[in-house]
Amino acid sequence: MSNRVEWLSQVRWDSSGLVPVIAQEAGTGDVLMFAWMDRDALQKTVETGRAVYFSRSRNKLWFKGEESGHVQLVQEVRMDCDYDVLQLMVTQTGHEPGIACHTGRHSCFFQLFSDGAAGGEWKITAPVLKDPATIYK
Amino acid sequence: MSNRVEWLSQVRWDSSGLVPVIAQEAGTGDVLMFAWMDRDALQKTVETGRAVYFSRSRNKLWFKGEESGHVQLVQEVRMDCDYDVLQLMVTQTGHEPGIACHTGRHSCFFQLFSDGAAGGEWKITAPVLKDPATIYK
Repeated sequence: MSNRVEWLSQVRWDSSGLVPVIAQEAGTGDVLMFAWMDRDALQKTVETGRAVYFSRSRNKLWFKGEESGHVQLVQEVRMDCDYDVLQLMVTQTGHEPGIACHTGRHSCFFQLFSDGAAGGEWKITAPVLKDPATIYK
Repeated sequence: MSNRVEWLSQVRWDSSGLVPVIAQEAGTGDVLMFAWMDRDALQKTVETGRAVYFSRSRNKLWFKGEESGHVQLVQEVRMDCDYDVLQLMVTQTGHEPGIACHTGRHSCFFQLFSDGAAGGEWKITAPVLKDPATIYK
């Protein structure tokens, strides 16, 4: 009903009609990925219980797992104090442990800053759990 | 040295020279807040070991805790697969439990979507730990 629209309108969509979204794994607390949603994506996420994002590169809705089968079941949708960032608590399905990253890794945040003698660098800290070539056919 | 510049240049700053940053509490795994960094903010974060963000509303560097005393000690800086989102693992100091939100709450993500009979709504799920009027003087 009209109330469905109201909660969607409380979100402060940016000038492109989007908000940032943080997906956190419910079981482990790991931050899995960062993405964007438009109004339609958020509504479909709530309706289906599965994470639906808006792909800025493809300029369309992106049903997480539509190609990989690595669907995210959404336990909670949270919004921040400024009404302009969302957080999802999800169960990452399709592989054990879950694969959220398109590189075949558990989380997208696998590059760790390391301040060595030669200066700073980004070090890869997580293994590829599945070859992306076999995930995206 | 030049290598210090190199790791900063590997970050894909957006057209405004910023990247999104997710701050997660090291001890609890709680996502505390979401903010932005420019190149200078990231460099100062790494140099000082304390979270320094870029305030888009004030258009300047924002040393987290500069007014509140609620400084974030940075344990890790992580970067995502696309080189355009950062994640900090932090210890939220200044209060026990930590207060990251300007509303005086632990986390900024205290509004939970609830799908009731009357339609969807955002429900406040976390208490104010300290009156903001006493935090920001």
